[in-house]
Amino acid sequence: MKAPCVILKDAQLAENIGAAARVMANFGLSELRLVSPRDGWPQARAWASASGADWPLDGARVFDRLEDALADLHLVLATTARPREAVLPVFSPREGAAELREAASEGWSCGVLFGGERAGLEADDIALCHGVVTAPVDERFRSLNLAQAVALTAYEWRMSAAPAAPTGFVEAPTPADHAALMGFYGQLEDELDAAGFFHPPEKRPSMVRNLRVALGRARLTDQEVRTLRGVVTALSKGRGKVLAKLAAKARALDNEGSQKS
Amino acid sequence: MKAPCVILKDAQLAENIGAAARVMANFGLSELRLVSPRDGWPQARAWASASGADWPLDGARVFDRLEDALADLHLVLATTARPREAVLPVFSPREGAAELREAASEGWSCGVLFGGERAGLEADDIALCHGVVTAPVDERFRSLNLAQAVALTAYEWRMSAAPAAPTGFVEAPTPADHAALMGFYGQLEDELDAAGFFHPPEKRPSMVRNLRVALGRARLTDQEVRTLRGVVTALSKGRGKVLAKLAAKARALDNEGSQKS
Repeated sequence: MKAPCVILKDAQLAENIGAAARVMANFGLSELRLVSPRDGWPQARAWASASGADWPLDGARVFDRLEDALADLHLVLATTARPREAVLPVFSPREGAAELREAASEGWSCGVLFGGERAGLEADDIALCHGVVTAPVDERFRSLNLAQAVALTAYEWRMSAAPAAPTGFVEAPTPADHAALMGFYGQLEDELDAAGFFHPPEKRPSMVRNLRVALGRARLTDQEVRTLRGVVTALSKGRGKVLAKLAAKARALDNEGSQKS
Repeated sequence: MKAPCVILKDAQLAENIGAAARVMANFGLSELRLVSPRDGWPQARAWASASGADWPLDGARVFDRLEDALADLHLVLATTARPREAVLPVFSPREGAAELREAASEGWSCGVLFGGERAGLEADDIALCHGVVTAPVDERFRSLNLAQAVALTAYEWRMSAAPAAPTGFVEAPTPADHAALMGFYGQLEDELDAAGFFHPPEKRPSMVRNLRVALGRARLTDQEVRTLRGVVTALSKGRGKVLAKLAAKARALDNEGSQKS
Protein backbone atom coordinates (compact mmCIF):
# COMPACT_ATOMS: atom_id res chain seq x y z
CA MET A 1 0.00 0.00 0.00
CA LYS A 2 1.39 3.35 -1.05
CA ALA A 3 1.28 6.06 1.62
CA PRO A 4 -0.19 9.42 0.62
CA CYS A 5 2.08 12.18 -0.54
CA VAL A 6 2.11 15.54 1.21
CA ILE A 7 1.69 18.56 -1.05
CA LEU A 8 2.67 21.95 0.35
CA LYS A 9 1.48 24.88 -1.74
CA ASP A 10 2.92 28.37 -1.27
CA ALA A 11 4.85 27.39 1.85
CA GLN A 12 6.60 30.46 3.17
CA LEU A 13 9.11 29.25 5.75
CA ALA A 14 11.71 26.63 4.91
CA GLU A 15 11.72 25.78 8.63
CA ASN A 16 8.12 24.68 8.35
CA ILE A 17 8.88 22.55 5.32
CA GLY A 18 11.63 20.88 7.33
CA ALA A 19 9.39 20.42 10.35
CA ALA A 20 6.75 18.90 8.10
CA ALA A 21 9.34 16.48 6.68
CA ARG A 22 10.37 15.51 10.19
CA VAL A 23 6.87 14.64 11.32
CA MET A 24 6.17 12.87 8.03
CA ALA A 25 9.15 10.64 8.81
CA ASN A 26 7.85 10.11 12.35
CA PHE A 27 4.69 8.59 10.97
CA GLY A 28 5.90 6.80 7.88
CA LEU A 29 5.20 9.32 5.11
CA SER A 30 8.02 10.07 2.70
CA GLU A 31 6.77 11.67 -0.50
CA LEU A 32 6.80 15.46 -0.44
CA ARG A 33 5.71 17.78 -3.24
CA LEU A 34 6.19 21.52 -3.15
CA VAL A 35 4.16 23.93 -5.22
CA SER A 36 5.83 27.34 -5.63
CA PRO A 37 7.59 27.53 -2.25
CA ARG A 38 8.01 31.23 -1.51
CA ASP A 39 11.77 31.27 -1.05
CA GLY A 40 12.62 28.79 -3.79
CA TRP A 41 14.07 25.33 -3.41
CA PRO A 42 16.26 23.81 -2.02
CA GLN A 43 16.66 25.75 1.23
CA ALA A 44 19.29 24.68 3.77
CA ARG A 45 17.05 25.78 6.65
CA ALA A 46 14.58 23.05 5.76
CA TRP A 47 17.19 20.36 6.27
CA ALA A 48 18.28 21.99 9.53
CA SER A 49 14.79 21.87 10.98
CA ALA A 50 14.15 18.32 9.77
CA SER A 51 16.59 17.09 12.44
CA GLY A 52 17.82 14.24 10.30
CA ALA A 53 14.61 13.36 8.45
CA ASP A 54 16.34 14.22 5.20
CA TRP A 55 14.75 11.79 2.80
CA PRO A 56 11.44 13.56 2.26
CA LEU A 57 13.41 16.73 1.52
CA ASP A 58 16.01 15.02 -0.66
CA GLY A 59 13.27 13.50 -2.75
CA ALA A 60 10.94 16.51 -2.82
CA ARG A 61 9.58 17.48 -6.22
CA VAL A 62 8.83 21.10 -7.03
CA PHE A 63 6.00 22.29 -9.23
CA ASP A 64 4.92 25.67 -10.53
CA ARG A 65 1.29 24.73 -10.84
CA LEU A 66 -0.89 22.82 -8.41
CA GLU A 67 -2.54 20.99 -11.29
CA ASP A 68 0.81 19.46 -12.23
CA ALA A 69 1.52 18.42 -8.66
CA LEU A 70 -1.77 16.55 -8.56
CA ALA A 71 -1.67 15.11 -12.05
CA ASP A 72 -1.08 11.45 -11.15
CA LEU A 73 -3.23 11.35 -8.02
CA HIS A 74 -6.60 9.66 -7.76
CA LEU A 75 -7.70 11.10 -4.44
CA VAL A 76 -6.63 14.43 -3.00
CA LEU A 77 -7.88 15.88 0.28
CA ALA A 78 -7.44 19.58 1.00
CA THR A 79 -6.70 20.68 4.54
CA THR A 80 -8.21 23.95 5.62
CA ALA A 81 -9.38 25.60 8.81
CA ARG A 82 -12.32 27.07 6.94
CA PRO A 83 -14.11 24.72 4.59
CA ARG A 84 -15.73 27.83 3.15
CA GLU A 85 -18.29 27.47 0.46
CA ALA A 86 -16.83 24.39 -1.20
CA VAL A 87 -19.54 21.78 -1.50
CA LEU A 88 -17.24 18.88 -0.71
CA PRO A 89 -17.32 16.23 1.95
CA VAL A 90 -15.69 17.54 5.14
CA PHE A 91 -13.62 15.14 7.23
CA SER A 92 -11.81 15.28 10.53
CA PRO A 93 -8.16 14.24 10.24
CA ARG A 94 -9.22 10.84 11.52
CA GLU A 95 -11.97 10.40 8.96
CA GLY A 96 -9.69 11.75 6.27
CA ALA A 97 -7.07 9.17 7.15
CA ALA A 98 -9.68 6.44 6.88
CA GLU A 99 -10.61 7.71 3.41
CA LEU A 100 -6.99 7.78 2.37
CA ARG A 101 -6.26 4.33 3.69
CA GLU A 102 -9.28 2.84 2.01
CA ALA A 103 -8.30 4.46 -1.27
CA ALA A 104 -4.66 3.42 -0.92
CA SER A 105 -5.74 -0.14 -0.23
CA GLU A 106 -7.49 -0.06 -3.60
CA GLY A 107 -4.20 0.89 -5.22
CA TRP A 108 -5.07 4.56 -5.66
CA SER A 109 -2.41 7.22 -5.47
CA CYS A 110 -3.42 9.71 -2.80
CA GLY A 111 -2.29 13.05 -1.49
CA VAL A 112 -3.06 15.62 1.16
CA LEU A 113 -2.79 19.26 0.21
CA PHE A 114 -1.79 22.04 2.59
CA GLY A 115 -1.82 25.79 1.93
CA GLY A 116 0.65 28.45 2.93
CA GLU A 117 1.16 29.70 6.47
CA ARG A 118 -0.65 32.97 6.10
CA ALA A 119 -3.53 32.45 3.75
CA GLY A 120 -4.05 28.71 3.56
CA LEU A 121 -5.65 27.30 0.46
CA GLU A 122 -7.72 29.30 -1.96
CA ALA A 123 -11.12 28.19 -3.09
CA ASP A 124 -9.66 27.41 -6.52
CA ASP A 125 -7.18 25.04 -4.92
CA ILE A 126 -9.86 23.30 -2.94
CA ALA A 127 -11.94 22.95 -6.06
CA LEU A 128 -9.25 20.62 -7.41
CA CYS A 129 -9.68 18.22 -4.51
CA HIS A 130 -12.16 15.50 -3.63
CA GLY A 131 -12.72 16.34 -0.01
CA VAL A 132 -11.75 18.69 2.79
CA VAL A 133 -9.95 17.82 6.01
CA THR A 134 -10.32 20.19 8.89
CA ALA A 135 -8.94 19.81 12.40
CA PRO A 136 -11.39 20.39 15.26
CA VAL A 137 -9.68 23.55 16.46
CA ASP A 138 -11.07 25.82 19.15
CA GLU A 139 -13.06 28.69 17.69
CA ARG A 140 -11.11 31.10 19.87
CA PHE A 141 -7.77 30.23 18.30
CA ARG A 142 -7.98 28.59 14.92
CA SER A 143 -4.50 29.35 13.60
CA LEU A 144 -2.83 25.95 13.34
CA ASN A 145 0.85 25.88 12.47
CA LEU A 146 1.55 24.30 9.07
CA ALA A 147 3.80 21.55 10.40
CA GLN A 148 1.25 20.82 13.14
CA ALA A 149 -1.42 20.35 10.51
CA VAL A 150 0.87 17.93 8.69
CA ALA A 151 1.52 16.22 12.02
CA LEU A 152 -2.15 15.50 12.65
CA THR A 153 -2.62 14.09 9.17
CA ALA A 154 0.51 11.95 9.36
CA TYR A 155 -0.36 10.75 12.85
CA GLU A 156 -3.88 9.78 11.84
CA TRP A 157 -2.58 8.02 8.74
CA ARG A 158 -0.35 5.95 10.98
CA MET A 159 -3.11 5.37 13.55
CA SER A 160 -5.46 4.22 10.81
CA ALA A 161 -3.16 1.25 10.25
CA ALA A 162 -1.96 0.59 13.76
CA PRO A 163 -3.78 -1.54 16.24
CA ALA A 164 -4.87 0.43 19.27
CA ALA A 165 -1.67 -0.31 21.15
CA PRO A 166 1.50 1.31 19.90
CA THR A 167 3.98 -1.09 18.40
CA GLY A 168 7.42 -1.88 19.68
CA PHE A 169 6.67 -1.81 23.36
CA VAL A 170 6.27 -4.33 26.06
CA GLU A 171 2.70 -4.28 27.22
CA ALA A 172 1.96 -3.92 30.89
CA PRO A 173 3.32 -7.10 32.49
CA THR A 174 1.06 -9.87 33.68
CA PRO A 175 -0.30 -9.10 37.12
CA ALA A 176 0.17 -11.57 39.92
CA ASP A 177 -2.54 -14.16 40.22
CA HIS A 178 -5.11 -14.01 42.94
CA ALA A 179 -3.46 -16.58 45.19
CA ALA A 180 -0.25 -14.57 45.29
CA LEU A 181 -2.20 -11.43 46.02
CA MET A 182 -4.22 -13.08 48.78
CA GLY A 183 -1.06 -14.43 50.31
CA PHE A 184 0.30 -10.92 50.46
CA TYR A 185 -2.95 -9.49 51.82
CA GLY A 186 -3.05 -12.21 54.47
CA GLN A 187 0.49 -11.47 55.56
CA LEU A 188 -0.15 -7.76 55.68
CA GLU A 189 -3.40 -8.05 57.57
CA ASP A 190 -1.91 -10.48 60.10
CA GLU A 191 0.88 -8.06 60.79
CA LEU A 192 -1.54 -5.18 61.09
CA ASP A 193 -3.66 -7.21 63.49
CA ALA A 194 -0.56 -7.85 65.56
CA ALA A 195 0.21 -4.16 65.54
CA GLY A 196 -3.29 -3.18 66.66
CA PHE A 197 -3.82 -1.23 63.44
CA PHE A 198 -7.50 -2.16 62.99
CA HIS A 199 -9.20 -0.05 65.55
CA PRO A 200 -12.01 -0.09 66.54
CA PRO A 201 -12.45 -3.82 65.85
CA GLU A 202 -15.89 -3.46 64.24
CA LYS A 203 -14.30 -1.35 61.52
CA ARG A 204 -11.81 -4.05 60.57
CA PRO A 205 -13.80 -5.47 57.63
CA SER A 206 -14.17 -2.13 55.89
CA MET A 207 -10.58 -1.16 56.62
CA VAL A 208 -9.35 -4.44 55.13
CA ARG A 209 -11.55 -3.92 52.11
CA ASN A 210 -10.27 -0.42 51.52
CA LEU A 211 -6.68 -1.56 51.74
CA ARG A 212 -7.26 -4.38 49.29
CA VAL A 213 -9.02 -2.11 46.83
CA ALA A 214 -6.18 0.40 46.94
CA LEU A 215 -3.47 -2.22 46.52
CA GLY A 216 -5.45 -4.19 43.97
CA ARG A 217 -5.74 -1.19 41.71
CA ALA A 218 -1.96 -1.26 41.28
CA ARG A 219 -2.21 -4.60 39.45
CA LEU A 220 0.97 -5.76 41.12
CA THR A 221 3.21 -8.23 39.34
CA ASP A 222 4.58 -11.35 41.03
CA GLN A 223 7.90 -9.64 41.53
CA GLU A 224 6.23 -6.60 43.05
CA VAL A 225 4.19 -8.80 45.37
CA ARG A 226 7.38 -10.49 46.51
CA THR A 227 9.00 -7.11 47.06
CA LEU A 228 6.06 -5.84 49.06
CA ARG A 229 6.00 -8.99 51.18
CA GLY A 230 9.63 -8.25 51.94
CA VAL A 231 8.68 -4.70 52.85
CA VAL A 232 6.01 -5.90 55.24
CA THR A 233 8.36 -8.42 56.75
CA ALA A 234 11.12 -5.87 57.21
CA LEU A 235 8.77 -3.38 58.79
CA SER A 236 7.12 -5.85 61.12
CA LYS A 237 10.24 -7.69 62.19
CA GLY A 238 12.05 -4.40 62.57
CA ARG A 239 9.25 -3.11 64.71
CA GLY A 240 9.29 -6.38 66.58
CA LYS A 241 13.00 -6.05 67.24
CA VAL A 242 12.60 -2.50 68.48
CA LEU A 243 9.73 -3.53 70.71
CA ALA A 244 11.70 -6.49 71.98
CA LYS A 245 14.61 -4.21 72.81
CA LEU A 246 12.35 -1.72 74.53
CA ALA A 247 10.69 -4.51 76.45
CA ALA A 248 14.07 -5.87 77.48
CA LYS A 249 15.17 -2.43 78.55
CA ALA A 250 11.95 -1.91 80.49
CA ARG A 251 12.43 -5.23 82.21
CA ALA A 252 15.98 -4.29 83.06
CA LEU A 253 14.81 -0.98 84.48
CA ASP A 254 12.11 -2.75 86.42
CA ASN A 255 14.65 -5.12 87.83
CA GLU A 256 16.91 -2.21 88.69
CA GLY A 257 14.03 -0.46 90.45
CA SER A 258 13.14 -3.65 92.31
CA GLN A 259 16.66 -4.02 93.48
CA LYS A 260 16.73 -0.42 94.67
CA SER A 261 13.52 -0.64 96.61
CA MET B 1 -14.78 19.67 33.34
CA LYS B 2 -11.25 20.91 33.83
CA ALA B 3 -8.88 20.34 30.92
CA PRO B 4 -5.51 18.77 31.71
CA CYS B 5 -2.50 20.95 32.28
CA VAL B 6 0.64 20.56 30.20
CA ILE B 7 3.87 20.17 32.15
CA LEU B 8 7.13 20.75 30.29
CA LYS B 9 10.20 19.60 32.18
CA ASP B 10 13.70 20.74 31.16
CA ALA B 11 12.47 22.38 27.95
CA GLN B 12 15.46 23.75 26.09
CA LEU B 13 14.11 26.04 23.39
CA ALA B 14 11.72 28.88 24.18
CA GLU B 15 10.46 28.54 20.60
CA ASN B 16 9.21 25.08 21.44
CA ILE B 17 7.49 26.33 24.58
CA GLY B 18 5.73 28.93 22.46
CA ALA B 19 4.81 26.42 19.78
CA ALA B 20 3.42 24.16 22.49
CA ALA B 21 1.32 27.04 23.85
CA ARG B 22 0.01 27.74 20.37
CA VAL B 23 -1.20 24.21 19.76
CA MET B 24 -2.59 24.01 23.30
CA ALA B 25 -4.73 27.02 22.41
CA ASN B 26 -5.75 25.37 19.14
CA PHE B 27 -7.26 22.49 21.04
CA GLY B 28 -8.61 24.17 24.15
CA LEU B 29 -5.83 23.61 26.67
CA SER B 30 -4.64 26.62 28.63
CA GLU B 31 -2.75 25.63 31.76
CA LEU B 32 1.01 25.41 31.28
CA ARG B 33 3.57 24.47 33.92
CA LEU B 34 7.31 24.69 33.37
CA VAL B 35 9.83 22.72 35.39
CA SER B 36 13.33 24.20 35.23
CA PRO B 37 13.25 25.54 31.65
CA ARG B 38 16.86 25.63 30.48
CA ASP B 39 17.05 29.31 29.58
CA GLY B 40 14.95 30.62 32.44
CA TRP B 41 11.55 32.26 32.27
CA PRO B 42 10.01 34.38 30.80
CA GLN B 43 11.58 34.28 27.33
CA ALA B 44 10.37 36.68 24.62
CA ARG B 45 10.98 34.05 21.92
CA ALA B 46 8.25 31.90 23.42
CA TRP B 47 5.67 34.61 22.89
CA ALA B 48 6.95 35.21 19.36
CA SER B 49 6.47 31.60 18.36
CA ALA B 50 3.06 31.36 20.02
CA SER B 51 1.65 33.55 17.24
CA GLY B 52 -0.87 35.21 19.52
CA ALA B 53 -1.68 32.30 21.83
CA ASP B 54 -0.36 34.31 24.73
CA TRP B 55 -2.56 33.17 27.57
CA PRO B 56 -0.93 29.83 28.29
CA LEU B 57 2.41 31.64 28.44
CA ASP B 58 1.10 34.57 30.47
CA GLY B 59 -0.31 32.20 33.03
CA ALA B 60 2.55 29.70 33.03
CA ARG B 61 3.83 28.66 36.45
CA VAL B 62 7.48 27.77 36.93
CA PHE B 63 8.76 25.11 39.32
CA ASP B 64 12.20 23.96 40.36
CA ARG B 65 11.11 20.44 41.20
CA LEU B 66 8.82 18.14 39.27
CA GLU B 67 7.22 16.94 42.52
CA ASP B 68 6.01 20.47 43.20
CA ALA B 69 4.59 20.86 39.70
CA LEU B 70 2.55 17.69 40.17
CA ALA B 71 1.54 18.27 43.78
CA ASP B 72 -2.14 19.05 43.20
CA LEU B 73 -2.76 16.59 40.36
CA HIS B 74 -4.67 13.35 40.68
CA LEU B 75 -3.68 11.77 37.39
CA VAL B 76 -0.48 12.44 35.46
CA LEU B 77 0.52 10.73 32.24
CA ALA B 78 4.13 10.83 31.09
CA THR B 79 4.85 11.10 27.38
CA THR B 80 7.89 9.27 26.16
CA ALA B 81 9.13 7.59 23.03
CA ARG B 82 10.71 4.87 25.13
CA PRO B 83 8.61 3.63 28.04
CA ARG B 84 11.79 1.91 29.27
CA GLU B 85 11.52 -0.21 32.33
CA ALA B 86 8.69 1.65 34.03
CA VAL B 87 5.99 -0.81 34.89
CA LEU B 88 3.09 1.46 34.05
CA PRO B 89 0.18 1.17 31.65
CA VAL B 90 1.20 2.30 28.16
CA PHE B 91 -1.32 4.32 26.15
CA SER B 92 -1.45 5.72 22.66
CA PRO B 93 -2.28 9.45 22.63
CA ARG B 94 -5.86 8.46 21.87
CA GLU B 95 -6.12 6.04 24.75
CA GLY B 96 -4.37 8.52 27.00
CA ALA B 97 -6.91 11.19 26.11
CA ALA B 98 -9.71 8.81 26.99
CA GLU B 99 -8.09 8.18 30.38
CA LEU B 100 -7.72 11.89 30.97
CA ARG B 101 -11.27 12.69 29.98
CA GLU B 102 -12.71 10.00 32.20
CA ALA B 103 -10.65 11.26 35.11
CA ALA B 104 -11.53 14.90 34.42
CA SER B 105 -15.20 13.98 34.27
CA GLU B 106 -14.81 12.66 37.82
CA GLY B 107 -13.52 16.05 38.88
CA TRP B 108 -9.88 15.00 39.02
CA SER B 109 -7.10 17.43 38.20
CA CYS B 110 -4.99 15.93 35.43
CA GLY B 111 -1.77 16.67 33.65
CA VAL B 112 0.43 15.43 30.85
CA LEU B 113 4.18 15.55 31.37
CA PHE B 114 6.71 16.09 28.58
CA GLY B 115 10.49 15.87 28.84
CA GLY B 116 13.17 18.03 27.27
CA GLU B 117 14.03 18.05 23.58
CA ARG B 118 17.22 16.08 23.80
CA ALA B 119 16.83 13.53 26.55
CA GLY B 120 13.12 13.25 27.21
CA LEU B 121 11.97 12.11 30.62
CA GLU B 122 14.11 10.16 33.04
CA ALA B 123 12.91 6.98 34.69
CA ASP B 124 12.59 8.86 37.98
CA ASP B 125 10.24 11.36 36.35
CA ILE B 126 8.11 8.62 34.86
CA ALA B 127 7.94 6.90 38.23
CA LEU B 128 5.97 9.90 39.51
CA CYS B 129 3.25 9.32 36.92
CA HIS B 130 0.31 6.95 36.63
CA GLY B 131 0.72 5.93 33.02
CA VAL B 132 2.80 6.43 29.91
CA VAL B 133 1.66 7.93 26.62
CA THR B 134 3.67 7.13 23.54
CA ALA B 135 2.96 8.08 19.96
CA PRO B 136 3.08 5.28 17.38
CA VAL B 137 6.15 6.63 15.64
CA ASP B 138 8.01 4.81 12.92
CA GLU B 139 10.91 2.78 14.25
CA ARG B 140 13.15 4.31 11.61
CA PHE B 141 12.65 7.86 12.86
CA ARG B 142 11.42 8.13 16.40
CA SER B 143 12.52 11.67 17.22
CA LEU B 144 9.27 13.59 17.67
CA ASN B 145 9.50 17.35 18.10
CA LEU B 146 8.38 18.52 21.55
CA ALA B 147 5.61 20.79 20.28
CA GLN B 148 4.42 18.02 17.95
CA ALA B 149 4.13 15.68 20.90
CA VAL B 150 2.07 18.33 22.70
CA ALA B 151 0.01 18.72 19.52
CA LEU B 152 -0.98 15.06 19.41
CA THR B 153 -2.00 15.07 23.06
CA ALA B 154 -3.97 18.28 22.73
CA TYR B 155 -5.63 17.13 19.52
CA GLU B 156 -6.65 13.81 21.04
CA TRP B 157 -7.98 15.55 24.14
CA ARG B 158 -10.18 17.63 21.89
CA MET B 159 -11.20 14.65 19.76
CA SER B 160 -12.14 12.70 22.86
CA ALA B 161 -14.92 15.21 23.44
CA ALA B 162 -16.19 15.35 19.88
CA PRO B 163 -18.85 12.94 18.78
CA ALA B 164 -17.86 10.74 15.88
CA ALA B 165 -19.03 12.36 12.69
CA PRO B 166 -20.62 10.29 9.97
CA THR B 167 -18.14 8.82 7.56
CA GLY B 168 -17.76 9.72 3.93
CA PHE B 169 -18.23 7.59 0.91
CA VAL B 170 -19.49 4.23 -0.08
CA GLU B 171 -17.25 1.96 -2.10
CA ALA B 172 -16.52 3.47 -5.45
CA PRO B 173 -14.58 2.55 -8.58
CA THR B 174 -11.14 4.03 -9.16
CA PRO B 175 -11.55 7.67 -10.05
CA ALA B 176 -9.81 9.16 -13.03
CA ASP B 177 -6.46 10.68 -12.26
CA HIS B 178 -6.06 14.39 -12.09
CA ALA B 179 -4.59 14.84 -15.54
CA ALA B 180 -7.64 13.22 -17.09
CA LEU B 181 -9.92 15.38 -15.02
CA MET B 182 -8.06 18.57 -15.92
CA GLY B 183 -8.19 17.65 -19.58
CA PHE B 184 -11.94 17.35 -19.30
CA TYR B 185 -12.29 20.59 -17.34
CA GLY B 186 -10.14 22.40 -19.90
CA GLN B 187 -12.22 21.13 -22.79
CA LEU B 188 -15.46 22.02 -21.06
CA GLU B 189 -14.35 25.50 -20.07
CA ASP B 190 -12.97 26.25 -23.53
CA GLU B 191 -16.27 25.29 -25.06
CA LEU B 192 -18.19 27.33 -22.52
CA ASP B 193 -15.95 30.30 -23.25
CA ALA B 194 -16.67 29.93 -26.94
CA ALA B 195 -20.36 29.74 -26.18
CA GLY B 196 -20.31 32.88 -24.05
CA PHE B 197 -21.50 30.85 -21.05
CA PHE B 198 -19.44 32.72 -18.50
CA HIS B 199 -21.38 35.91 -18.17
CA PRO B 200 -20.70 38.46 -16.85
CA PRO B 201 -16.95 37.91 -17.36
CA GLU B 202 -16.00 38.89 -13.81
CA LYS B 203 -17.99 35.94 -12.56
CA ARG B 204 -15.99 33.47 -14.61
CA PRO B 205 -13.61 32.42 -11.81
CA SER B 206 -16.35 31.56 -9.38
CA MET B 207 -18.43 29.88 -12.06
CA VAL B 208 -15.45 27.75 -13.09
CA ARG B 209 -14.84 26.88 -9.46
CA ASN B 210 -18.41 25.87 -8.82
CA LEU B 211 -18.41 23.67 -11.89
CA ARG B 212 -15.18 21.96 -10.88
CA VAL B 213 -16.39 21.40 -7.35
CA ALA B 214 -19.62 19.89 -8.56
CA LEU B 215 -17.93 17.65 -11.11
CA GLY B 216 -15.05 16.80 -8.80
CA ARG B 217 -17.42 15.56 -6.15
CA ALA B 218 -18.59 12.90 -8.55
CA ARG B 219 -15.18 11.20 -8.46
CA LEU B 220 -15.58 10.39 -12.11
CA THR B 221 -13.97 7.27 -13.47
CA ASP B 222 -11.85 7.29 -16.61
CA GLN B 223 -14.79 5.91 -18.55
CA GLU B 224 -17.09 8.59 -17.22
CA VAL B 225 -14.59 11.28 -18.11
CA ARG B 226 -14.40 9.93 -21.65
CA THR B 227 -18.15 9.85 -21.82
CA LEU B 228 -18.49 13.38 -20.56
CA ARG B 229 -15.84 14.60 -22.99
CA GLY B 230 -17.95 13.04 -25.70
CA VAL B 231 -20.98 14.81 -24.31
CA VAL B 232 -19.22 18.15 -24.43
CA THR B 233 -17.97 17.51 -27.94
CA ALA B 234 -21.40 16.51 -29.13
CA LEU B 235 -22.99 19.53 -27.57
CA SER B 236 -20.44 21.98 -28.88
CA LYS B 237 -20.26 20.55 -32.38
CA GLY B 238 -24.00 20.34 -32.39
CA ARG B 239 -24.12 23.98 -31.46
CA GLY B 240 -21.62 24.56 -34.26
CA LYS B 241 -23.96 22.90 -36.71
CA VAL B 242 -26.88 24.99 -35.53
CA LEU B 243 -24.78 28.12 -35.87
CA ALA B 244 -23.65 27.04 -39.30
CA LYS B 245 -27.26 26.55 -40.31
CA LEU B 246 -28.24 29.93 -38.90
CA ALA B 247 -25.31 31.54 -40.65
CA ALA B 248 -26.28 29.90 -43.91
CA LYS B 249 -29.81 31.05 -43.44
CA ALA B 250 -28.64 34.57 -42.67
CA ARG B 251 -26.49 34.57 -45.80
CA ALA B 252 -29.43 33.33 -47.79
CA LEU B 253 -31.61 36.09 -46.39
CA ASP B 254 -28.88 38.59 -47.14
CA ASN B 255 -28.64 37.33 -50.67
CA GLU B 256 -32.39 37.50 -50.98
CA GLY B 257 -32.29 41.06 -49.70
CA SER B 258 -29.52 41.93 -52.14
CA GLN B 259 -31.44 40.50 -55.02
CA LYS B 260 -34.51 42.51 -53.99
CA SER B 261 -32.66 45.77 -53.77
